[in-house]
Order: sequence, then C-alpha cells, then structure tokens
Amino acid sequence: MKILTVGTVAFDAIESPFGKVDKIIGGAATYISWSASYYTKDLAIVSVIGGDYDMESLDRLRARGVDTAGIEIKEDEKSFFWSGRYHTDMNTRDSLDTQLNVLLSFDPKVPSSHRDAEILMLGNIDPTLQMKVIDQMKNPAFIVLDTMNFWMEIKLDALKEVIKRANLLTINDEEARLLTGEYSLKKASQKILAMGPQYLIIKKGEHGALLFSKDDMFFAPALPLEDVFDPTGAGDTFAGGLVGYLAQREEFTFEELKQGVIHGSMMASYCVESFGPQRLMELNDVMRMERLEEFRRLTKF
Amino acid sequence: MKILTVGTVAFDAIESPFGKVDKIIGGAATYISWSASYYTKDLAIVSVIGGDYDMESLDRLRARGVDTAGIEIKEDEKSFFWSGRYHTDMNTRDSLDTQLNVLLSFDPKVPSSHRDAEILMLGNIDPTLQMKVIDQMKNPAFIVLDTMNFWMEIKLDALKEVIKRANLLTINDEEARLLTGEYSLKKASQKILAMGPQYLIIKKGEHGALLFSKDDMFFAPALPLEDVFDPTGAGDTFAGGLVGYLAQREEFTFEELKQGVIHGSMMASYCVESFGPQRLMELNDVMRMERLEEFRRLTKF
Repeated sequence: MKILTVGTVAFDAIESPFGKVDKIIGGAATYISWSASYYTKDLAIVSVIGGDYDMESLDRLRARGVDTAGIEIKEDEKSFFWSGRYHTDMNTRDSLDTQLNVLLSFDPKVPSSHRDAEILMLGNIDPTLQMKVIDQMKNPAFIVLDTMNFWMEIKLDALKEVIKRANLLTINDEEARLLTGEYSLKKASQKILAMGPQYLIIKKGEHGALLFSKDDMFFAPALPLEDVFDPTGAGDTFAGGLVGYLAQREEFTFEELKQGVIHGSMMASYCVESFGPQRLMELNDVMRMERLEEFRRLTKF
Repeated sequence: MKILTVGTVAFDAIESPFGKVDKIIGGAATYISWSASYYTKDLAIVSVIGGDYDMESLDRLRARGVDTAGIEIKEDEKSFFWSGRYHTDMNTRDSLDTQLNVLLSFDPKVPSSHRDAEILMLGNIDPTLQMKVIDQMKNPAFIVLDTMNFWMEIKLDALKEVIKRANLLTINDEEARLLTGEYSLKKASQKILAMGPQYLIIKKGEHGALLFSKDDMFFAPALPLEDVFDPTGAGDTFAGGLVGYLAQREEFTFEELKQGVIHGSMMASYCVESFGPQRLMELNDVMRMERLEEFRRLTKF
C-alpha cells in the first residue's frame, strides 16, 4: 500500500541537557518518512521548502523509496525553522523561535500520481490545509491525523471537521483532556471516538501510548532508556513506524493497530538516542527486531 | 508463608475532586493487610494506635486472618492522623495536617510468635524503626521495604542501612531520582540495586510501575479507569497484593515478581475506586480474576 505523508520538511535547532545542534534537518514529514521507509518503499511527501534547504537530504529520502515530487521548492524563500530547548524533564520543552517562512503561503497540491494512495498520513499542520489534502484524494482506505493543542485553541471548528474524516487520531494526553474537558483518559477517549475516528492513540511520551477503539483498549510502554538525548521527532517517528507497518500488513483491524503501535514505539525509542533524525537513518533489521524483542520482554507476563 | 507487616494503622481525612471524607480508617498496614488477605490468611501486623481507634475495624482485620496482637494500644493517646487534598491531577496532593500522636513514641516490638515470618513487609515509617524490626526477626526469606522522599532528606544514612538489608525496595520515580541523582530511571535502578536489594520497583502512579533486577526489567501499566476517586493507599495496596501473591507462591524469582507486580496493580486499581479502603473490603475472586484479564488484554500483543 502506498503512503502519502503531508507535513513539514524543515530545519531545527535543538538544545537538551546532552548538548545542542544549531541547524539540523527535521519536520514531521522527514521523521515520518524515514521511519516508514523501514517498512515500505511506496512513499510520497507533499510539503514545501525554501531554496536554502539541504537538497542532498532529499536525495537520501529518494534513495529510501520516498517520492519527493510533491515537495514544492520556493527558491527565493526560506524553509520553516523551529528552535527549542528541553529541560531535564524531557517531557516539556520551550520553543525559542518559530519562523514559518514558506509555510505562510503553503497551499498543498497533491500530484495526480499520489491521489490514489491508500494511506494518508496528515502530519501536524493547519487543519484547513489538512482538509484541502483530503479533498484532493481518491477515497483513501485509512487516514491518520496528527495535530496539537495550538489548533484546538485557534481553529477548533476546522479541526473537528478533519477529525470527523480521520480513521485514526493521534494526540497527547494533555491534548485529549483539552479537546474533551475530561481528565480521565478513558472518558476522553470515548468522547473523541464519538467525534468520528475509528481509533484513537493517546501519546504519553516517556510513559508510553494508549490505543482505543469503541470497545477495546491497548497500552504500549515506552522502553526505559539509559539516556534520552533529544525527543524531537519522536511522535512523528512513532506515527511513521505505525503507518509503515499498516501499509505492509494491508489491514486496519485492532489487532494490527496494536502491533503497529509497538512498531511505532520501537522506532521512536531509537529516534531519541541522538539529535535530530540521525539515529533513525542508521538502523537495520537486526537492530529493529532486537528492540521489538525488548518490548515483548518488557510487558509479557 | 507468613507475612509480617510493620506500618501505620491510622485515621485519614481526604478531599478529592469527587468528594471528601472527614475520618476514615487508613494507614499503610491497613491497606497492605487488607490487600494481602485475598492471597493468604497467615498475616500479622506490628503497629501502634490510640484509645480513640475504631476497634471494630480490627475485628474485621482479624476476620480476614490478620493477627493483631502486635498492634499496641495506648489507651490515653490519640491515633496517627493524616489529612490531605488531591487536585484534578491525582498524582499530586497537599498534606493539610499530620498529627503523629502515638507514632511519636513508637518503639516496635515483634511478638515472639511473629519472629519467624518468612516475608517481612516494612511499610513507610522511620528507617530507624524499620531496622529495629529487622533486628528482632529470625532470618526472614524476603524483606520488602517501602519508604519516601522525607526519609531520604532527613535520615539518609539510616535509610541506606535498611536498603542494604532489603530484598525489594519500592519507591516512586521522583524518589528514585532523588536517591541517585540520575534522571534516567534505568540508570537510577542500577545505582539502587548496587546498594544491596535484589529487586527494585519504581511506582509511577497512573503511569504504572517498573520492576528491575540487575539483568532484567518489566513494566506493568496502571489500568486506565473511568474515574479515580481517591488514590490514598494505592501504593500500599499494590505492595499488599504483591507480597500476598509471593506468600502464596513461596518463590522469589523474577518471573514470580512479575506476576506479583500485576496482582499488586490489579488490587490497586480497585482501591482507588472509592474513598479509603472501602472498595478493597468488598472484592471477591471473580472480580479479581476479571480485572487480571483486563490487565492481560491491555498489554498482550
């Protein structure tokens, strides 16, 4: 199955207690695609970058099976840039700088060759743009929607329309509470599923992730690691592993979603071991299988 | 196997977003013993209470197989009293009032009939008193130690001596970080195990619990619930289910510890469903097995 990912392709500057990097490639679509590329070679991105972007990094994506024809290049503009700082508690971060640049006028166009993708992965961008992408697609089998508190606060109505169209929504625990007014994640999940999606994933960072359907519930832990160097992109890497796994399996049952959540968690556990997507670029099948086995041992009783 | 529990038998006053109770029986030894009583009838408590205590509640404990001969009654004094308030985030609470009363002069004496208990469960009290109890025992097979940040701050040396003697230490994530100066729980666990205990459990409240040995690691989730009414006693109920299970199995391997952690989590998931130990007093085997099955479904993949 083909996966079309819509999301940012960007530069990041990151500080954590373990060091800092001034300019590194990032953006949701970068992490999602790198992660999914370990599961399928039928991938495409719709995004926008400036003439300043690291074009060699797009070559590397293409070598992984990612069609980049849908990445619009605005030669005279600058790429989206985000800068942030993590504290000892890696679950919280300060945004130091956000330069939207090319994103300000982003009007996503899905190349006709990508409109038949079976899986549509909507990275965290303006819900109005996410809806524009959905409307260009030919009836995708499975739509995954990522979003954040920012859109709940300023574009809730547009976001709700997109949520209605999604098969799976991924948000974090605070966002689930914000969206529903329910503190209990179990109650929040039922309210969100009533908005339309068949499945919901609530991400809890170092505390793992919960998968909900109307009738069922599954919990995937995060693997306790010696050190977390940089959590940037962990959520997107998680989503990439999940959709990659689903594309390989070509099924969207709760059982397959469960396995997908474990694969996503496994990929994310590697992502945080270095700055940016670096670690994610050097994995192999043996490493991935070994870590899946660690997840299995961690919870099997 | 016989379990001897040392810890408070007390009155609590509790406020949570779901209501409040002015005076309810509580204390670590109460929760531990009620929880363990679903696994074994060979139980005993060493504690101290005032003449004001609810003596009928001791009858109920005895009816559950708990020998209360080691609970000293100081007729002219008042029982230990704690009052606290939980916020929407049930992981944090404010202590409103702590009246040590009988605890001020507590000098634990283990009746000779209890000195041969195979499992010694040291509830959270002054580590000097915990050591006094250890010294009165005849070579127990398994010592479980619960403690808290307060003792790390004011009696660290005495606490370290007790930790050295314990087979299993149970603390929460913040306490593991405080005790070791390591943010990573994996690194913290290795430092703590080097202090003496064979096993370590790091409790993370609504985020579950981690079990560590030098070579292995296991994660038990907390069951997502519709509502958490009152987390008071959840950690003690967890410990009670764990030692109860171990007493029944008569083995202390990592595999048995894993099962014990799941049993403890299951018992704790019931405890938080009402104020005080009330819910814990009305369980039966069918309810317990049903919820164990929920835990199994929650993480099995």
